Amino acid sequence: MQVAVLAHDAFPDRAKTAVGLLRYGDHEVRAVLDQARAGKRVTDELPGVQDAPIVSSMADVPAVDALVIGVAPIGGGFDESWRPDVRAALERGCHVLSGLHYFLGEDDEFAELADEHGGRLADLRKPPDDLTVADGTAGGVDATVVTTVGTDCSTGKMTTAFELRDAARERGLDAAVAPTGQTGVAIEGWGIVVDRVISDYAAGAVERLVETPAGLDLVVVEGQGALAHPAYSGVTASILHGSAPDALVMCHEAGRESVHGYESFAIPPPGEYVDIYERLAGPVSGASVVAGALNTQGLADDAADDAVADYAEAIGAPATDPVRDGIPDEVLDVIV
Amino acid sequence: MQVAVLAHDAFPDRAKTAVGLLRYGDHEVRAVLDQARAGKRVTDELPGVQDAPIVSSMADVPAVDALVIGVAPIGGGFDESWRPDVRAALERGCHVLSGLHYFLGEDDEFAELADEHGGRLADLRKPPDDLTVADGTAGGVDATVVTTVGTDCSTGKMTTAFELRDAARERGLDAAVAPTGQTGVAIEGWGIVVDRVISDYAAGAVERLVETPAGLDLVVVEGQGALAHPAYSGVTASILHGSAPDALVMCHEAGRESVHGYESFAIPPPGEYVDIYERLAGPVSGASVVAGALNTQGLADDAADDAVADYAEAIGAPATDPVRDGIPDEVLDVIV
Repeated sequence: MQVAVLAHDAFPDRAKTAVGLLRYGDHEVRAVLDQARAGKRVTDELPGVQDAPIVSSMADVPAVDALVIGVAPIGGGFDESWRPDVRAALERGCHVLSGLHYFLGEDDEFAELADEHGGRLADLRKPPDDLTVADGTAGGVDATVVTTVGTDCSTGKMTTAFELRDAARERGLDAAVAPTGQTGVAIEGWGIVVDRVISDYAAGAVERLVETPAGLDLVVVEGQGALAHPAYSGVTASILHGSAPDALVMCHEAGRESVHGYESFAIPPPGEYVDIYERLAGPVSGASVVAGALNTQGLADDAADDAVADYAEAIGAPATDPVRDGIPDEVLDVIV
Repeated sequence: MQVAVLAHDAFPDRAKTAVGLLRYGDHEVRAVLDQARAGKRVTDELPGVQDAPIVSSMADVPAVDALVIGVAPIGGGFDESWRPDVRAALERGCHVLSGLHYFLGEDDEFAELADEHGGRLADLRKPPDDLTVADGTAGGVDATVVTTVGTDCSTGKMTTAFELRDAARERGLDAAVAPTGQTGVAIEGWGIVVDRVISDYAAGAVERLVETPAGLDLVVVEGQGALAHPAYSGVTASILHGSAPDALVMCHEAGRESVHGYESFAIPPPGEYVDIYERLAGPVSGASVVAGALNTQGLADDAADDAVADYAEAIGAPATDPVRDGIPDEVLDVIV
């Protein structure tokens, strides 16, 4: 699919979905819309990803199949300044993909335009309406299933999932990410935003994700939250058990000691956190933490290397910073 | 409040909500509707609860404030044979309380009748629409908070919660149950059915429940599911962390070794399960399992006594079968 990505005034630092699409997506990105940076190119702002022109509006976008909303503002609202671009895309017959809380399909003008011109409004945060409780069958899939888990939110679970997929593909394996969050779903164009699913069906949603891709060697399930998180542990537990993984990769941010946004709660030390995950995974799928991913953003190279080595020792498993160092063989070897 | 309870063809064995209301509710039950047993009295069928006549329809019910749907058929559907009674209750100006999946408020006929006669349709399974993510503040409530947890579904978590409340009240304490399931909510007339809340807000819903009653000595949070359950662990984790309990009471059914409905999954032995709960509770509220409740239904008295003693030894804490033996002092003493 050929797509344009809307990221007005936000590219790249506040446009996580746009960056994910450029780095990990299978789509050809033909333009990024950011009126503040129009005239530049993507790689001027963000080296090492697929390149594309940055333009100011849909008028400057070449032929594409879809416009993807590439920003997720806090609260998930729709910024009315984006309306002309969404309207223009629909008038061209394009699909519009959105991970916003605000459902474009419930916007009368957009619904009418989509209907008139044949485009589809895909609200990716909306769970399927036929979900059910888990059957407990995810352990039966043929592929190796690995789930990324974390010691907190925003520790790199999605990034690690895509990096593992890419490393496995480089080794010639058929690998896919099962996306469970809005950014992952927007990047892949399928998946279920698990935190929006009613609690009763959350594990069932993950089970469906794991069982959906056929004929793969490796499914990497994108984890969410953290198992000892005061607010999000339910989502984490549903993914841990619903995915019935063969193995876990535990993601942590170097130096983070308290739960982000819940600073009165200490994060258990990494070695102890491994035990928490394994205790809970044990009765359902017996998975253990076979590798670690450490986010060392903000550390100098030497300090980062030391931090990764310390982390590996603490969790008793090989570790890497997937952004800084990719996925080394010793990490991939324990997974596939 | 004076109520009638609808339990057609189901009282008492398949009318869990009706039985709970009669045993634990603060409402005066003035009649139970069961056309198959009309003419009998409640205590003919179910000794040891508040008594009331069993009648065949609303026509035989004395003045009441509300009709409560006291059955929860599998699937949670509305049985059309109940329509005349619900209609009659609304025509008398009564409220109708329902924990069904089928929302009475969305039934055109019922909505119209309620509107016309001033009754309220209370669909207790419907979560409030202003829920948010947890703030992590439940640990700050003044009351002692104890959460009932289990090794599986249907091990007695709701019953234990109400028995603990009643035992605390007998000791002169101000105690309440925070209901998290449809039966508990129907019994108490407040609460939130947590498994219907979207995963992101589930812990926040429980936090709200714990923080709602003011000036209490003891809040007993009704647990749901089980922490190592392949389908429901997300609900359990959300309640465990959202309630930030001071202590846990672990409920188990004597002899149950595999997860009900998921027989290929073994239930970890009770002593190990205590450790799983404590590992996960630790980082958020530090709660430990201070007592156990064993469901010995189906065992003879002697065997039941032995089973309770074995269970207490396995979990390293005092235990009881709350239905058979109530809550002994040694159990209450470790909680309040």
